[in-house]
Amino acid sequence: MRKAAFVMRLLAGFFGALILTSGASALDDPLPSWNAGAAKTAIVDFVTAVTTAGSPDFVPPADRIATFDNDGTLWVEQPFYTQLAFALERVKALAPQHPEWTTTQPFKAVLEDDLKTLAAGGEKGLVELVMATHAGMTTDEFAAIVTDWLKTARHPRLKQPYTKLIYQPMLELLAYLRANGFKTFIVSGGGVEFMRPWTESVYGVPPEQVVGSTIKTEFELRDGKPVLMRLPQIDFIDDKTGKPVGINKFIGRQPIAAFGNSDGDLQMLQWTTSAPGRRFGLIVRHDDAEREYAYDRDSHIGRLDKALDAAPAAGWTVVSMKRDWNAVFPREK
Amino acid sequence: MRKAAFVMRLLAGFFGALILTSGASALDDPLPSWNAGAAKTAIVDFVTAVTTAGSPDFVPPADRIATFDNDGTLWVEQPFYTQLAFALERVKALAPQHPEWTTTQPFKAVLEDDLKTLAAGGEKGLVELVMATHAGMTTDEFAAIVTDWLKTARHPRLKQPYTKLIYQPMLELLAYLRANGFKTFIVSGGGVEFMRPWTESVYGVPPEQVVGSTIKTEFELRDGKPVLMRLPQIDFIDDKTGKPVGINKFIGRQPIAAFGNSDGDLQMLQWTTSAPGRRFGLIVRHDDAEREYAYDRDSHIGRLDKALDAAPAAGWTVVSMKRDWNAVFPREK
Repeated sequence: MRKAAFVMRLLAGFFGALILTSGASALDDPLPSWNAGAAKTAIVDFVTAVTTAGSPDFVPPADRIATFDNDGTLWVEQPFYTQLAFALERVKALAPQHPEWTTTQPFKAVLEDDLKTLAAGGEKGLVELVMATHAGMTTDEFAAIVTDWLKTARHPRLKQPYTKLIYQPMLELLAYLRANGFKTFIVSGGGVEFMRPWTESVYGVPPEQVVGSTIKTEFELRDGKPVLMRLPQIDFIDDKTGKPVGINKFIGRQPIAAFGNSDGDLQMLQWTTSAPGRRFGLIVRHDDAEREYAYDRDSHIGRLDKALDAAPAAGWTVVSMKRDWNAVFPREK
Repeated sequence: MRKAAFVMRLLAGFFGALILTSGASALDDPLPSWNAGAAKTAIVDFVTAVTTAGSPDFVPPADRIATFDNDGTLWVEQPFYTQLAFALERVKALAPQHPEWTTTQPFKAVLEDDLKTLAAGGEKGLVELVMATHAGMTTDEFAAIVTDWLKTARHPRLKQPYTKLIYQPMLELLAYLRANGFKTFIVSGGGVEFMRPWTESVYGVPPEQVVGSTIKTEFELRDGKPVLMRLPQIDFIDDKTGKPVGINKFIGRQPIAAFGNSDGDLQMLQWTTSAPGRRFGLIVRHDDAEREYAYDRDSHIGRLDKALDAAPAAGWTVVSMKRDWNAVFPREK
């Protein structure tokens, strides 16, 4: 009987803890960095509708797929994509092994910080830079290079590590969705192997839930050990019309919610929200030059034009960073 | 107090149920269709080693990735791949809309059941058949076609629906791994969109955990509605050296366990088991002509030759279907 009483006491304690926990979480705001307003209400209404048993909009957990763009949606993308910063800095780091770069474009322009000449080289030049810095090593070696670079690299204006320049309200949104049975995916125009080394620790998104652009790799036995070599050939560009293609290829389900910030996300938003049933589309609008950046229709990076025009008729929620977010970045570093 | 007492009673009931459940599952054999022997012991030893906290071989749940070949590893692949049976039967179903097929190879051969001529056409002919039957529709339409076909299609010798010709011991193995915190993936040479419509209900593997060969798709607005059209172009072949490439591309982690049955799985097994730490590789050997099929080194389908030679030195477990499995297919249909 003493044993039974002891078990009962343990159970009562456990039960009490449960009540406290669930009471506390009902009172707690899962989205504290979101100001009250239409955007926050739309998010909570959607999640409530698709997760409430018996609701006409109920969606079984297995189908609760949410896809997030990365650059400009989960982290800062100005003044240029972080992956480009990586490529430029890698060119400088590798320059001693490539004396020919001092006289060859686009490398010469990078080494001389001549962004004008670099820009004039257009896409062809950028692809050359990407290939010179992203290919020619094994997948494991590349992951280590990315991880090392992120440790010391700093954003030119905000002077922080890039992995700290992530949006606190979006972290809360990711966690809120996962707490409600969603599987959260990144669907980015960026390179998938540039993201996978850190998305789990930074966003809670494991490598197998990261969809992105890919370069070709090749299986090889190196000293008898199997490795995958990264080849200087583009395999797939996961941007614009490529995003629904990438979602279908990698995930194989249509999301019920999609989150983006630019015209690069237009087709993902269309593809997601045009399906039958309750769906959710959201656009982060960068209108906060003080805390972050302000840009939209005329920006060279993350242009938001067609998607902004399409939002009202499509019923997408447009978030104003300035108005809707009371914090932009995580408070404690 | 009455309320408290009631709660206590509920909790005691709940606790009692927990004890019963965990007692029962500890006594139950999670792999009842596996006969006692080296193969079963190797599986259980591996799972125990990587899941026991404090074990030198412990692997955190997030890294417990297991990859399974499909044809010949999870379901029957003889006398020809199910996907080929699908293609041949689709040619016959579509023939009325293609009068030209009665005089054009390889279609003529299919319509006349002339397998000799078909085989003589080689890979080129097969690719033509696949494209004619797998492309030209939306991804949703293709999924519906596959689902419908599987409802009525029957295996030529075993006279069962293909989705019943799955290996019961492997179903138990999938469930056992998942119960031990593994994430189970299919990594097949077959078309990813031929598998995804049914892998969740048949194997418990959701679409986003299916890696396979892909054809290109294209985003299109059809009557204003976004769709993905399937194009008659191969995008990626997930076989042989393509398997590690596909695993890296789709999953982005190296598995700690891989399961296959043919030389098409050789590089996946090498890639998986050569990594540092405790790893597991397993080959299903088809040596049971009575209950299923017996084939290995000389087979045109699922040839097992190099991988069988490599198994002893690599420490892979070779399963004899005849000796190690007391059931091949699920008992009750």
